[in-house]
Amino acid sequence: MTDALKTFLTDLDLDIRAQGDWGQVADYIPELGRIDPAQFGIAVALPGGGMVSAGQARQRFSIQSVSKVFSLACVLGRIGEQIWTRVGREPSGQRFDSILALEHENGRPRNPFINAGALVTTDELLTGRAPKETLAETLGFLRAAAEDDDIHIDKAVARSEAATGHRNAALAHYLKSCDNLRNPPEITLGTYVHQCAIEMTCEQLARAGRVIAQLPGAPRMLTPLKARRISALMMMCGHYDGSGDFAFRVGLPAKSGVGGGILLIAPGQASIAIWSPGLDGYGNSRMGSHAAERLAHHMGWSVFG
Amino acid sequence: MTDALKTFLTDLDLDIRAQGDWGQVADYIPELGRIDPAQFGIAVALPGGGMVSAGQARQRFSIQSVSKVFSLACVLGRIGEQIWTRVGREPSGQRFDSILALEHENGRPRNPFINAGALVTTDELLTGRAPKETLAETLGFLRAAAEDDDIHIDKAVARSEAATGHRNAALAHYLKSCDNLRNPPEITLGTYVHQCAIEMTCEQLARAGRVIAQLPGAPRMLTPLKARRISALMMMCGHYDGSGDFAFRVGLPAKSGVGGGILLIAPGQASIAIWSPGLDGYGNSRMGSHAAERLAHHMGWSVFG
Amino acid sequence: MTDALKTFLTDLDLDIRAQGDWGQVADYIPELGRIDPAQFGIAVALPGGGMVSAGQARQRFSIQSVSKVFSLACVLGRIGEQIWTRVGREPSGQRFDSILALEHENGRPRNPFINAGALVTTDELLTGRAPKETLAETLGFLRAAAEDDDIHIDKAVARSEAATGHRNAALAHYLKSCDNLRNPPEITLGTYVHQCAIEMTCEQLARAGRVIAQLPGAPRMLTPLKARRISALMMMCGHYDGSGDFAFRVGLPAKSGVGGGILLIAPGQASIAIWSPGLDGYGNSRMGSHAAERLAHHMGWSVFG
Amino acid sequence: MTDALKTFLTDLDLDIRAQGDWGQVADYIPELGRIDPAQFGIAVALPGGGMVSAGQARQRFSIQSVSKVFSLACVLGRIGEQIWTRVGREPSGQRFDSILALEHENGRPRNPFINAGALVTTDELLTGRAPKETLAETLGFLRAAAEDDDIHIDKAVARSEAATGHRNAALAHYLKSCDNLRNPPEITLGTYVHQCAIEMTCEQLARAGRVIAQLPGAPRMLTPLKARRISALMMMCGHYDGSGDFAFRVGLPAKSGVGGGILLIAPGQASIAIWSPGLDGYGNSRMGSHAAERLAHHMGWSVFG
Repeated sequence: MTDALKTFLTDLDLDIRAQGDWGQVADYIPELGRIDPAQFGIAVALPGGGMVSAGQARQRFSIQSVSKVFSLACVLGRIGEQIWTRVGREPSGQRFDSILALEHENGRPRNPFINAGALVTTDELLTGRAPKETLAETLGFLRAAAEDDDIHIDKAVARSEAATGHRNAALAHYLKSCDNLRNPPEITLGTYVHQCAIEMTCEQLARAGRVIAQLPGAPRMLTPLKARRISALMMMCGHYDGSGDFAFRVGLPAKSGVGGGILLIAPGQASIAIWSPGLDGYGNSRMGSHAAERLAHHMGWSVFG
Repeated sequence: MTDALKTFLTDLDLDIRAQGDWGQVADYIPELGRIDPAQFGIAVALPGGGMVSAGQARQRFSIQSVSKVFSLACVLGRIGEQIWTRVGREPSGQRFDSILALEHENGRPRNPFINAGALVTTDELLTGRAPKETLAETLGFLRAAAEDDDIHIDKAVARSEAATGHRNAALAHYLKSCDNLRNPPEITLGTYVHQCAIEMTCEQLARAGRVIAQLPGAPRMLTPLKARRISALMMMCGHYDGSGDFAFRVGLPAKSGVGGGILLIAPGQASIAIWSPGLDGYGNSRMGSHAAERLAHHMGWSVFG
Repeated sequence: MTDALKTFLTDLDLDIRAQGDWGQVADYIPELGRIDPAQFGIAVALPGGGMVSAGQARQRFSIQSVSKVFSLACVLGRIGEQIWTRVGREPSGQRFDSILALEHENGRPRNPFINAGALVTTDELLTGRAPKETLAETLGFLRAAAEDDDIHIDKAVARSEAATGHRNAALAHYLKSCDNLRNPPEITLGTYVHQCAIEMTCEQLARAGRVIAQLPGAPRMLTPLKARRISALMMMCGHYDGSGDFAFRVGLPAKSGVGGGILLIAPGQASIAIWSPGLDGYGNSRMGSHAAERLAHHMGWSVFG
Repeated sequence: MTDALKTFLTDLDLDIRAQGDWGQVADYIPELGRIDPAQFGIAVALPGGGMVSAGQARQRFSIQSVSKVFSLACVLGRIGEQIWTRVGREPSGQRFDSILALEHENGRPRNPFINAGALVTTDELLTGRAPKETLAETLGFLRAAAEDDDIHIDKAVARSEAATGHRNAALAHYLKSCDNLRNPPEITLGTYVHQCAIEMTCEQLARAGRVIAQLPGAPRMLTPLKARRISALMMMCGHYDGSGDFAFRVGLPAKSGVGGGILLIAPGQASIAIWSPGLDGYGNSRMGSHAAERLAHHMGWSVFG
């Protein structure tokens, strides 16, 4: 299978570069706004340790909101089900940075993958710990899951987002005004933007995703129940207001980030990372979604049969 | 496996009757409001034609919104992807009968499983056909899928809902005012309430669901792609504003109805129908959801691994 | 003053016709959609019975929502303050036909001048009375206030609105589903569209408005307190989501209709009716608003000093 | 008239103290939360310099949002109509600190009297000037209008609000993210809370209001047109989501603050200040509204005739 998959991925990479319908990079974070949208990488981690990739699969990119999957994993490991008193698990029906739903629901974010919800999980992780230690925990989880210590935070991206992230600051202060933030907003925000600024390659991210896909041979860092539940949340809420469309077209749990990354989970079968920095109107990677759909169909990977 | 499953279902039935936390029946449809909430039935259709059931699995009940899955199947068979110009495929983040989202999205319902969206699919099915023929098509689909001709419409329930269904009438007129209804609102509404008033037993419904679960031995009425897509929509939108919670807890695509029925799909493994008419705050069967969670965990049925 | 006012109105009429920026007629009511937008009339009723007018001030037009002022007057005369249990008195912040606020406030319309609120006042007027008698009461009020029996309903307009008014039907059914409509929706809707289809000339409407302006010499049909309160509601809610702008620019209580009519009240000083059927984006008469602003400034008529 | 008014106000003060239905003080600003709600003062400035008062009319209180009227007056004096490109003039239909409307309208607050709108006017006043100078301008306006230099900022209240005002911080960051704030959010917020922390007595505030009421003998600091427009905005938006009700019951333009103050304008006739720190559910002074209604009815002061 590995050879056939390699051929498919190589052809896919060529097709996408030929097609060239890349979308726009996220320009609200100045450091990300400078990136060339015409880039593409894909990596597939298989049971038993196999890795097949194509394109710029060893190019580092800012994982941004994909990090929310792993900070949720850390929170579930630390306090478990109690987190659901502070954040819901329903699709939001709104943009990733919307504040509307927050007012309707009195400061309890709809789910942990929209920005407001991720601020709450980061805030929870900060309990009894300094920002540095908290970031070390999330980074440590990723390094252990990927079995690779060469994963770091891009401080220039963190600074760039901190300086211009007024929408996130609005969310953090709103949460604080509803008594759903324990730390000073600046502390939670600072930690959050550093966590979003983690840099990884497609190969690293695909390897880290194995613990959610529960691939044979992957480090055993999550119970099967926790892994399934994280996958369920990725399916329902992983692509913001485009989650329904993604589930319909691709049929796999996935989480996107505005850096252009997507992590896809084919439970028991594969962990896939795709990167292409040009975005569609929902803030999801345009060519990344396209590649995900083609790969899933080609391999017959769908949780729906 | 069949014997062990039979034992589990029998015990589950006893437990639920002992527990007695039934919820409230839907009283906005007077005929349904008269039903005793303290009832429970469950049926599991297996690959190769097996059927295991417990409780009141041969008691007829009003399938209500579960019918939306099958009318969508009919529409996809008839006009295919074009339906998505008239209705979306995103979770609504609102109650099943909300009109809010409709105004925000200029009359295009968020998905085919909220009431507004199902009015649109029914309206589409009425194209070039009388209400009687349209109902015959949906009924015919269900009978063929269940391989059982003894499936009928309860006209008393249809009349009861038609006489009091002002919220649905509001939705239909709103759709008409946005040019997203082709037939007179009364015609579409009348057809819709008759379709919702189809009566089935758990065993019949579980058998009909086999075509979505793509069980070996089931009638081949849907392509694998269509079956997967219907499952994806059930996962994302099948329990209204409680869909995220249901996916998190149960991990299977499912569709509920205010009559207390739930159809669950374990792709390739089982089609399950549960009925208990007492509802929770979202309008989903309280004991039905509970039984679904216990059965899925017991059997290890989850699309998420 | 009368001669100077006559000269001003005549010049204003000429200016407006020269300017020719008329806006669009309301096309959702087919009968109104056929009207030439390039028309204008204005009439000013003064204390002691004086009447000064210009342009097409004797041309009949469909008063539409301006009728809501007079049906409210009838309701206040009949049941008084109790009406406020069924409808609020706050600006809506939404379009005249919005259903959003209705869902947020559980079926209690924000005020009696948006469509949903006027359906409630009409429904209240129907209590213990047939539609014909109810319409006779509103017509009778207008005829007595205008001291003119030649005021009638244009049945072609009523039929045209009834046949196409699906948005209003949605509102009526929604109110019914919230138990805030006593009569069958069809009865309330039928009465409502006939009341909106009353035809008047600017001169007739200006004369009828004298009872709200409490002009010396006008029929005494409202207590001073009721007249003040109706004026307050016109100020706060009379121009839908453009009410704040109208208050800022014109400074007088006023009510607009989609037929292009505006009734303005300068308490104790004048009752003014303006008609120009081309509308702005809020559904208010474009040239009517413009003329109102110029007249109010010229005469120094503002309730704000 | 002065003697009769004095008698009326004295009786009103006694009645209100006897009645004792005071409401709750605003506790989200800790310094204000310590104040005894059972206090009341009223002052009426008359044409020609007369002043009649009762109760604690010489007790200083925090004018809070009443200051927004005067900062708007400063902005209108400085840049005039251009301010309306940054802020609207429509009632909001929401609470004073709501962020909902802001998202719906892409960061343009509905009016200058809700918190978001006042942040924008303060931000505009800061253009080319330090916070200290900006505050000196607003204070200077108040001192000149009141002809009294003994008006100051209570720095303890400003500090208290700054430390806990996360809702306002959320609004400021949201505005910044929409490019509708020119200064750093902290600068605008700091200036805003100091402006809100201005302390005045009822007698001082009533005297300052004379420039809006255009009372004979008052300093001529506003053109009649500006004064009328400020009054129109007070009428439409001065009591947040209770503005319609206040207009209906009282019939005068007015602005409330969470410190319990209300400034009322009877154009050409009186400027009235009332203070009672216990609030109703909308955040408006409970006994202040009650006193306003009784005074307006007694004196026949209503802009509506």
